[in-house]
Amino acid sequence: MSPPAQGRVLLAYSGGLDTSCILAWLIEQGYEVYAFMADVGQEEDFEAARKKALSVGAKKFFLEDLKREFVTQLIYPAVQANCIYENVYLLGTSLARPVIARGMMSIAANEGCDYVSHGCTGKGNDQVRFELAFYGLKPDIKVIAPWRLPEFYNRFPGRQALLAYAAEKQIPVQQTAAKPWSTDENLFHISYEAGILEDPNTTPPNDMWKLTAALEDAPAEPENLSIEFKAGLPVKVVIADQTPLTDAVDIFLALNAVARKHGVGRIDIVENRFIGVKSRGCYESPGATILRVAHMDIEGLTLDRNVRALRDQFVTIELGRILYNGHFFTPEREFVTSAIPASQRTVNGTVRLKLYKGNVVVVGRYSDEGLYDEHQSSMDELGGFEPTDTTGFIQIESIRIKKWGQANARKGQAGVEPEDVYGSRI
Amino acid sequence: MSPPAQGRVLLAYSGGLDTSCILAWLIEQGYEVYAFMADVGQEEDFEAARKKALSVGAKKFFLEDLKREFVTQLIYPAVQANCIYENVYLLGTSLARPVIARGMMSIAANEGCDYVSHGCTGKGNDQVRFELAFYGLKPDIKVIAPWRLPEFYNRFPGRQALLAYAAEKQIPVQQTAAKPWSTDENLFHISYEAGILEDPNTTPPNDMWKLTAALEDAPAEPENLSIEFKAGLPVKVVIADQTPLTDAVDIFLALNAVARKHGVGRIDIVENRFIGVKSRGCYESPGATILRVAHMDIEGLTLDRNVRALRDQFVTIELGRILYNGHFFTPEREFVTSAIPASQRTVNGTVRLKLYKGNVVVVGRYSDEGLYDEHQSSMDELGGFEPTDTTGFIQIESIRIKKWGQANARKGQAGVEPEDVYGSRI
Amino acid sequence: MSPPAQGRVLLAYSGGLDTSCILAWLIEQGYEVYAFMADVGQEEDFEAARKKALSVGAKKFFLEDLKREFVTQLIYPAVQANCIYENVYLLGTSLARPVIARGMMSIAANEGCDYVSHGCTGKGNDQVRFELAFYGLKPDIKVIAPWRLPEFYNRFPGRQALLAYAAEKQIPVQQTAAKPWSTDENLFHISYEAGILEDPNTTPPNDMWKLTAALEDAPAEPENLSIEFKAGLPVKVVIADQTPLTDAVDIFLALNAVARKHGVGRIDIVENRFIGVKSRGCYESPGATILRVAHMDIEGLTLDRNVRALRDQFVTIELGRILYNGHFFTPEREFVTSAIPASQRTVNGTVRLKLYKGNVVVVGRYSDEGLYDEHQSSMDELGGFEPTDTTGFIQIESIRIKKWGQANARKGQAGVEPEDVYGSRI
Amino acid sequence: MSPPAQGRVLLAYSGGLDTSCILAWLIEQGYEVYAFMADVGQEEDFEAARKKALSVGAKKFFLEDLKREFVTQLIYPAVQANCIYENVYLLGTSLARPVIARGMMSIAANEGCDYVSHGCTGKGNDQVRFELAFYGLKPDIKVIAPWRLPEFYNRFPGRQALLAYAAEKQIPVQQTAAKPWSTDENLFHISYEAGILEDPNTTPPNDMWKLTAALEDAPAEPENLSIEFKAGLPVKVVIADQTPLTDAVDIFLALNAVARKHGVGRIDIVENRFIGVKSRGCYESPGATILRVAHMDIEGLTLDRNVRALRDQFVTIELGRILYNGHFFTPEREFVTSAIPASQRTVNGTVRLKLYKGNVVVVGRYSDEGLYDEHQSSMDELGGFEPTDTTGFIQIESIRIKKWGQANARKGQAGVEPEDVYGSRI
Repeated sequence: MSPPAQGRVLLAYSGGLDTSCILAWLIEQGYEVYAFMADVGQEEDFEAARKKALSVGAKKFFLEDLKREFVTQLIYPAVQANCIYENVYLLGTSLARPVIARGMMSIAANEGCDYVSHGCTGKGNDQVRFELAFYGLKPDIKVIAPWRLPEFYNRFPGRQALLAYAAEKQIPVQQTAAKPWSTDENLFHISYEAGILEDPNTTPPNDMWKLTAALEDAPAEPENLSIEFKAGLPVKVVIADQTPLTDAVDIFLALNAVARKHGVGRIDIVENRFIGVKSRGCYESPGATILRVAHMDIEGLTLDRNVRALRDQFVTIELGRILYNGHFFTPEREFVTSAIPASQRTVNGTVRLKLYKGNVVVVGRYSDEGLYDEHQSSMDELGGFEPTDTTGFIQIESIRIKKWGQANARKGQAGVEPEDVYGSRI
Repeated sequence: MSPPAQGRVLLAYSGGLDTSCILAWLIEQGYEVYAFMADVGQEEDFEAARKKALSVGAKKFFLEDLKREFVTQLIYPAVQANCIYENVYLLGTSLARPVIARGMMSIAANEGCDYVSHGCTGKGNDQVRFELAFYGLKPDIKVIAPWRLPEFYNRFPGRQALLAYAAEKQIPVQQTAAKPWSTDENLFHISYEAGILEDPNTTPPNDMWKLTAALEDAPAEPENLSIEFKAGLPVKVVIADQTPLTDAVDIFLALNAVARKHGVGRIDIVENRFIGVKSRGCYESPGATILRVAHMDIEGLTLDRNVRALRDQFVTIELGRILYNGHFFTPEREFVTSAIPASQRTVNGTVRLKLYKGNVVVVGRYSDEGLYDEHQSSMDELGGFEPTDTTGFIQIESIRIKKWGQANARKGQAGVEPEDVYGSRI
Repeated sequence: MSPPAQGRVLLAYSGGLDTSCILAWLIEQGYEVYAFMADVGQEEDFEAARKKALSVGAKKFFLEDLKREFVTQLIYPAVQANCIYENVYLLGTSLARPVIARGMMSIAANEGCDYVSHGCTGKGNDQVRFELAFYGLKPDIKVIAPWRLPEFYNRFPGRQALLAYAAEKQIPVQQTAAKPWSTDENLFHISYEAGILEDPNTTPPNDMWKLTAALEDAPAEPENLSIEFKAGLPVKVVIADQTPLTDAVDIFLALNAVARKHGVGRIDIVENRFIGVKSRGCYESPGATILRVAHMDIEGLTLDRNVRALRDQFVTIELGRILYNGHFFTPEREFVTSAIPASQRTVNGTVRLKLYKGNVVVVGRYSDEGLYDEHQSSMDELGGFEPTDTTGFIQIESIRIKKWGQANARKGQAGVEPEDVYGSRI
Repeated sequence: MSPPAQGRVLLAYSGGLDTSCILAWLIEQGYEVYAFMADVGQEEDFEAARKKALSVGAKKFFLEDLKREFVTQLIYPAVQANCIYENVYLLGTSLARPVIARGMMSIAANEGCDYVSHGCTGKGNDQVRFELAFYGLKPDIKVIAPWRLPEFYNRFPGRQALLAYAAEKQIPVQQTAAKPWSTDENLFHISYEAGILEDPNTTPPNDMWKLTAALEDAPAEPENLSIEFKAGLPVKVVIADQTPLTDAVDIFLALNAVARKHGVGRIDIVENRFIGVKSRGCYESPGATILRVAHMDIEGLTLDRNVRALRDQFVTIELGRILYNGHFFTPEREFVTSAIPASQRTVNGTVRLKLYKGNVVVVGRYSDEGLYDEHQSSMDELGGFEPTDTTGFIQIESIRIKKWGQANARKGQAGVEPEDVYGSRI
């Protein structure tokens, strides 16, 4: 078969209006188009999307089930590292992009596609995450980003223009009105942004939230669960008196379900996009929120203090930034994640939790790891070291501080005098 | 007056059994003892304590009201810096120690005390925090820490021995049974540790918690409030439809009250003490928890991304550690806090919050600072930059990544292949 | 006067072929052009440049002497912070850009220029540094970067095309052959890159180096000097038996002269440009190299250990990166430099040095600051603390480590066994 | 055999006056003493030491050759990580301690020694390094540190008391006068401290330096060498036209020899000991200095920018501190070194160097790794990306900066105006 005139494009297809129009438009430009969908746990009628893509003119349609890969290769390392962006956002969209991009590059290579295309806007993070992942995996891939091409975005300045084009191309359009916000969903989370959310002072309407119960509607009865970790990974979860779960994906989905019921995992923030624009986003990350609380708690019991401190400054913050900015397929990501296993070797034990109206309450934890020693920490017994040792410790710790105090005194600065911060400075 | 034989001691006095016995014991050793109490907002009968100290034999009694200093010089800078220890603990005890130590050193200097003494145990953080603060402020001070002196701790191996000594010395003792845990209270928080809490799998009894309502008992109706920040400090708080508060201490106390009512601010953790021992602690920090949520949220709207990232890695984590380890009167604390004002110059705006059954929910925020720009972040309009610029941005960002991808490809490593973490490594 | 058709441009003019052609080309495009030169200490015939600019058609010519501002506002803070990029490069070009950009924006504002233009290439750091500085100072400025405009770079694909255009426009051209490398010079340093240097294995020819003697040609006799610092700044320099220097600029120039004589300050590296491209550069930074050695040495004597460590990780590395990437007029630069004064409060004292054939040898240092205490560090006397205190210190330090050793032993890992790195892993 | 009354002690023996007296004193206290020496490349008459130890009364003598282990397990990972303490000290003593301690703990376990002893003073770093290593490897070991025991240091307050004791115990003493400083030597370096060096303004006498030629005495002719790295490790060294060396230890020793000849590797500093005391030290680290220059240079050519930056902030600084403070057998060391391999995967290539009078000059480098691309960095060709891309990059980079500039302008702060640092603040 002779190659198509303009080349073959693998399009990240969602089944929605935008990517359907892009599909038609790419064909119009002379490309042969293959459509690609990733199943990362979003609620979607994949069969309908397949039919639609082929009806619009896609030559082939690929659906990849990446859920397990998503959970075990992306989500769980992030749990081990307590990854978070700007102290608040658990990175649900960022974590899905690498597996989707890898799925696409695999098919692009197998199917001889020189191009990939996507429907991301020209202002968001996802265009960057996708394209940097493409280039890291397949440096010679060529990217067609219609929403950054003047010939496309000038032709389709708004939804009406897309609808007109869809009508012209006989693309079926859902009759329901578009929601006044955008979403991205996968099994880790759902995000909401744009539209009415662009005013950061607008409280999201109750019916926006999809993955978690409202706090007021959550059960009046708390529910208990326990999570056992090995090397920082959840390996056994028992919810109430249900059968224990041990499969990685089963665990994650069950935590999602129970968190959803109890209203766990909503946030509403203003964050900083990679391109430097501030942006308001709302997120529901139900199961991930439970895992974060539990993992941090078991680390308290089982992880060395200095490893924890170094890991927090290095891995947690840096990996959060790397993921958010779409730098997964980079040497720095490889470097940072290489330190995770050594940080989690001792993170073995079980956390007992209570869920109640949005709260994830730790009610107990235990471990055989042995770094916690009741006798040693007890205020009621000597347990392993002499009180007189502490005198020596404090004396040595104070050497440097006394010298500094003496120097201050000589200069007439009798102690550091922080001023009232309501005055000029601390 | 001729100086006493052994010298004059300023004793950090609590009114309880331990420090009353220490008072008597110091006198027995030949010291002249002055008793010192700091009012940092704890619930305490100071007048009863005064009488008791003098009756046991203290020559003088000093009560210093340090509440305002505590709030404005210690708590609020920590709010500005989002200070936290090991991601969980808000440092309520750590923050009170420097103002208490400064109060003591001031009186020690004025009253010619060569010695100070305290009732801290030989295994905890507080002995270190107090003594390093003493030495930083007054390097020539001498410290008597009875619980680290064999002649003391061998003589009083347990509560019974102290009670016997109290009887001998006619020290009045409260007839209520001692609680099976220890506490430290001030207007920021209360801590619980030791006793039955030493098993980290023991759920604290409901009647332990003192400063916050149980989640189940919190009101079924949410309550709204708003907090206005200037330079990262709360300057105006409106709770429900009450009169706005603007005084720093009033604000903090009012936030405490409303948070207490709604069950906000309980934690239960295993932390790492400065001396390297793991320790279980439970804390209630009601108002501080609201302030943390609100301050981090307004920073999302008003603080530059790169400043936030640098501040998180540098000031937040380092200052948390400095405070926890009792290094307040040190050059490194002076260094780190000197960077706070520049980080908070733009942190001006108002956060609207809803409290409900332990949750602090952000329902909106606004600011005149201008770093957030609806038009710029909007997905529906161009707003300040061209989509084509992003193409250039991504191309430049990918230079380094493509080179790395090409090098990998040459070596036969077709993309980075993180293995399943449930296998051997990420 | 009516504004020019296309607007008024302030051109960063060097007097060379490129910017002279750009000047003519801008006029050809309909702009009114003002020419700007900054005197940052480079060797240049400014009067000839002025005449040339006007003869080519510039309506006005501005020469700003920014040497003192460069030394006192940019160079000396970098000395205080030990700024360096990738452990090697002292940032001479990066440091000059902010003062030049500020000079230009000041004139652009005063003279009503809507545009600025420069002759930087489209691959280097300087375009980024200039333009980000312009935007930080005057966000509404418009930048014309001809080497990134296809209509310019396609018309002038090489030096021959520029020469032809110069002939056409009667622009005088130096008859000397162009050097096979590019340079940037100011009073801090000179840089060499491009041309024959693009092969990183090519040793630079001896006659390339301009600001320092070859090691082999440097004097056979060493020379002594001393530098006194106050708050981390050089305030008095005595070279051999010459008159002491105290003026900031005089000091810097004198250090340049003596370093040049002794062959101090050459480096030859491969660095990473901001845009992600690796690039080979050679640099001579004579006086700055002496200052770096001396400042780091006096910090050893006078700066607290913990401040030094935090400053090294935070200010030194971050400010180096900020400067290199042209982020001077940003909130993060303001934040990072706000911490410098507190880090330098105690950095007072004098360093004695010997220069000899490229070496800067510290031969002694002294200070009244008092943080160094001979008696305390002496191995021959007790000096301030008891040896038994150290036993306590070590016991407490070992608590955590013993627990870990015990846990390892229980698991059958008898001690950490780093493998030979020549085997599989450390 | 019945165990000795007080138990069996393994003594770190040097053959000198101090440890010989300690040996005799331990026997006097009722211990059975085994003597241990490690050969880490120091110049020493081990046979004479063996005879002396046995003659003083040691029951057994152990000599362990740890040179290869020292080079391959300690030194080379430090080279890979560019380890340094306080920017200056290459950690020669710190690196030797872990292998010596491991050698001792191995024999202590095999020979049933409950105790170890050493001759370290009570003020230095080495006592801490040894003991923390002992405890990390064998948490139940008991340490006898005579210089911290009042019964020992009060009995032997100075050298005269030791000499008298030696005479009494018939311990042979070298007749040469003691040097007025202390040293520690191994194949990596020699250190000098204490005695006349305690005045930091005293220039060390020429005859103190042992491992390197004086600059003035180094050859007038430079010498060339090349070092090939694989994964950041030196695998082939060619000095002048000599036979290439490929064995790890051979390489290190040959670099030592050639560096010694050319006066490479002397430093003279004031450093901060772990216990918080400032201390003056002089060091010669000849071969290590060459390796540091070469390794950092090849990283410029072959290591990704972001990995380098993260590694510098995290591994280099943290591992330097961990090593200096004697925290080798700790979880944090295990954590930090686990990240080294991923940082060195691409560090493959060759550096060509010239040695001349203390200078290590890079004269070229090459690699097949492919991250450096002449065409891409060239200012004379397009090479891989469009100049117009950079315009987009700068526009996006400026979004955040423009917003900040606009906010400043609105507040009347027309640009950030750093003041002259010779005035009040930057």
